[in-house]
Amino acid sequence: MIYAVILCGGAGRRFWPFSRQLEPKQFLRLFGEKSLLQHTVSRIMGVVPVNNIYVVGNKAYFFEIKNELATYGVPEGNILLEPDGKNTAAAIGVAAQIIKTKDNEAILIVLPADHYVKNLIEFRRAIKKAILCAQDDLLATIGISPHKPFTGYGYIKVRGIKSQHKNYFLVERFLEKPSLKEALRYIRSKQFFWNSGIFVWKAAVILEEIKRYLPKLYSVLMQISEPNHIAHHWFKIKPVSIDYGVLEHSRRIGLVPAKFQWTDLGSWLALRDVFPKDKNGNVLNKNTVSLGSTGISVFSRSDRLICTIGLKDLIIADTQDALLVCHQDCTEEVKNLVKELKKAKRKEGLIHLTERRPWGSFTVLKSGLGFKIKLIEISPGKRLSLQSHRLRAEHWVVVSGVAKVLRGSETKIVKSNESIYIPQGMRHRLENPSRSAPLKIVEVQTGNYLEEDDIIRFKDDYIRD
Amino acid sequence: MIYAVILCGGAGRRFWPFSRQLEPKQFLRLFGEKSLLQHTVSRIMGVVPVNNIYVVGNKAYFFEIKNELATYGVPEGNILLEPDGKNTAAAIGVAAQIIKTKDNEAILIVLPADHYVKNLIEFRRAIKKAILCAQDDLLATIGISPHKPFTGYGYIKVRGIKSQHKNYFLVERFLEKPSLKEALRYIRSKQFFWNSGIFVWKAAVILEEIKRYLPKLYSVLMQISEPNHIAHHWFKIKPVSIDYGVLEHSRRIGLVPAKFQWTDLGSWLALRDVFPKDKNGNVLNKNTVSLGSTGISVFSRSDRLICTIGLKDLIIADTQDALLVCHQDCTEEVKNLVKELKKAKRKEGLIHLTERRPWGSFTVLKSGLGFKIKLIEISPGKRLSLQSHRLRAEHWVVVSGVAKVLRGSETKIVKSNESIYIPQGMRHRLENPSRSAPLKIVEVQTGNYLEEDDIIRFKDDYIRD
Repeated sequence: MIYAVILCGGAGRRFWPFSRQLEPKQFLRLFGEKSLLQHTVSRIMGVVPVNNIYVVGNKAYFFEIKNELATYGVPEGNILLEPDGKNTAAAIGVAAQIIKTKDNEAILIVLPADHYVKNLIEFRRAIKKAILCAQDDLLATIGISPHKPFTGYGYIKVRGIKSQHKNYFLVERFLEKPSLKEALRYIRSKQFFWNSGIFVWKAAVILEEIKRYLPKLYSVLMQISEPNHIAHHWFKIKPVSIDYGVLEHSRRIGLVPAKFQWTDLGSWLALRDVFPKDKNGNVLNKNTVSLGSTGISVFSRSDRLICTIGLKDLIIADTQDALLVCHQDCTEEVKNLVKELKKAKRKEGLIHLTERRPWGSFTVLKSGLGFKIKLIEISPGKRLSLQSHRLRAEHWVVVSGVAKVLRGSETKIVKSNESIYIPQGMRHRLENPSRSAPLKIVEVQTGNYLEEDDIIRFKDDYIRD
Repeated sequence: MIYAVILCGGAGRRFWPFSRQLEPKQFLRLFGEKSLLQHTVSRIMGVVPVNNIYVVGNKAYFFEIKNELATYGVPEGNILLEPDGKNTAAAIGVAAQIIKTKDNEAILIVLPADHYVKNLIEFRRAIKKAILCAQDDLLATIGISPHKPFTGYGYIKVRGIKSQHKNYFLVERFLEKPSLKEALRYIRSKQFFWNSGIFVWKAAVILEEIKRYLPKLYSVLMQISEPNHIAHHWFKIKPVSIDYGVLEHSRRIGLVPAKFQWTDLGSWLALRDVFPKDKNGNVLNKNTVSLGSTGISVFSRSDRLICTIGLKDLIIADTQDALLVCHQDCTEEVKNLVKELKKAKRKEGLIHLTERRPWGSFTVLKSGLGFKIKLIEISPGKRLSLQSHRLRAEHWVVVSGVAKVLRGSETKIVKSNESIYIPQGMRHRLENPSRSAPLKIVEVQTGNYLEEDDIIRFKDDYIRD
């Protein structure tokens, strides 16, 4: 059987301020309504039955991953949760081990959750060739013909242009990120490909290779045969990438050349590359007015008007609470900026003004002395915890949908254009009883202390402190 | 007697997005808590009794000017309202005519409302010398020693360095904005000064000179002897500046050299000049993180975090609903940008999210399908009009202060942490009965049409449609 293993780690540094520590790249909606994770799932769905799609991600993102997958019917049990990130060898190894325990002949398609791929037909054609390669007991990689001497990717050298066996090349060696000089040499030859990070192999074969080159990791993996074992053994694992730990050493690797457009979206500059440019080389949108600017890219998740005059080669990325203006030659430094924000304990490094919750989301519209205003959206059929607040009262105005409110011992239905008051200290629970319509309420909190930690939870549909 | 005439016109284009068509530069709080107009008033208060301070401004800004002046006790009758802007000759002429009607010997200090002046002692010393010059029946100008070959100001040439008579030079001629080559020649000589736009003269003398050089304007002015005549005659006036219309021709001009730091704040670049720079030549603030940027200036009226990487010589000006990123060599083009916005009917060209009203202000926090959320602040003792809305209901939550609410035929006191509902179509009036504390309420509007023009006013403390 064929399985997909989607690697959904990632710390969300390079796409700040769009990405935040608690909302990394794989959850961003950069192209249409779907997140990058959702694009990855739908990309592989024609090749793999939905019950065979596994996702490996940090446990901090469990509810987010679950919500993202709900549309596609991926079983919740297929979400493998890492207590913390241990790089790709561990993530791939643990998925291989758990799947192999069920299906000894399993073939795994390993896909990072945060790539951009254009041309689905070619993508699936390449995956099918890679499956044939994996059936020959090789580690199959998907290689991208490099169209520029990019120093941000690893390269793969194949054994001569004529060594193509059936649908793939045999690989001579893996190469780490090169210098510009080396990259120039690589792209002049036809023997070099970018390492896409998309792999296909038998679970048994990758585990054999892990056993050979990463024996310590292998011995930990042998103690894990189902998802709930992970947490117990994870601390023993030393992080290493599958490339560095296995692929740079293995002698049984094949490469399928890809004919689809691909990028790993490693920076704002990489994102710019994907979008069409206007006649001045600008990537703009409807909420932008630009005078005499060239080569600029404006990405916005706010509703603010953005105007530029006389700029050249800049990236502007705007969100409700944070703005980045960055020269396009400096996009690699965004991760350093995020480190600075973390050091300075700026909440803009951590979260968006709109915070997602298992039951929906809320946005802080305004904080002032003694009050805070939130717009809260509760998904159909969801409810918040049964809770109380020691130091604040809450006024709720329903602006869309219908709310079912438990207040003290009474239950009330509050309709659109109606309001209800939750006095300080009173137990309450907010629920959206509808099957289809979202519920939107405006919450005005009043009190002297209005932080999220003033919450006592008595009952919760989601396991939370 | 000595009078001040503060010119409070200005269209608010060059400081967009801080300034908007309905909130021009003179009302901006660029330095501390005071607006530029208020700085101008307090600058002249030591020299002129408060009852002698006159302000000429567009009638569109009447309530704004009145509010700004209230702190200082400038009589409301001293606000001279122009139906539309007719440039400085008309504004100065009408003030001279109205003041001379009361006081034939009046000496006027003419001050633009939107300048930056540092060193109050030197400023007042210069004004006093200029008064002596005016007493000699001359038109006294304040000249600034040019420290760089700036092409954005007009220049004044005096009659040789040795012609200084008492406290001032006699002026040879006024020169329009020069080319860079001319400007370089001017600053090498000691005979040239920047025209500060600050003038001192007898009302009678400037009117004589207007009669001589602008006879048509003079004949209109002769029909105006008190403020309420202005509206009737204003349409006959052809706009012209006092410099072009009178000063470039007059043969009775003196110049007092200023020893204070001065700028007319004609652009974002001029504003940058006023602020201290860090070691990288940047003007930043607490809500900014900058990596490797040099020569940049970040001005913010939002609470957003602004991060920059690798920028050079840029101006960033951020507000809640609009952002400008502009190369510092292009700040003159901001006015063209504002024209584009006007053409495109973008509301960001016209108003801020926070709109001022005679009774206080309101900020639109969020607009969504079927609802709008506002934070409303009502000044002590003020009240909104008695009004109703055909298409919306309103929920009010008091978050600070105490509200007196007339709803239908009942009057209610609504305290902090209490709320009240105004059904669609019901007459209501909101008042802050306190003498000192501002009233803040969160308003949640619900309905299908939520624009400002859905308002029927029955009674109003302010003359409004």
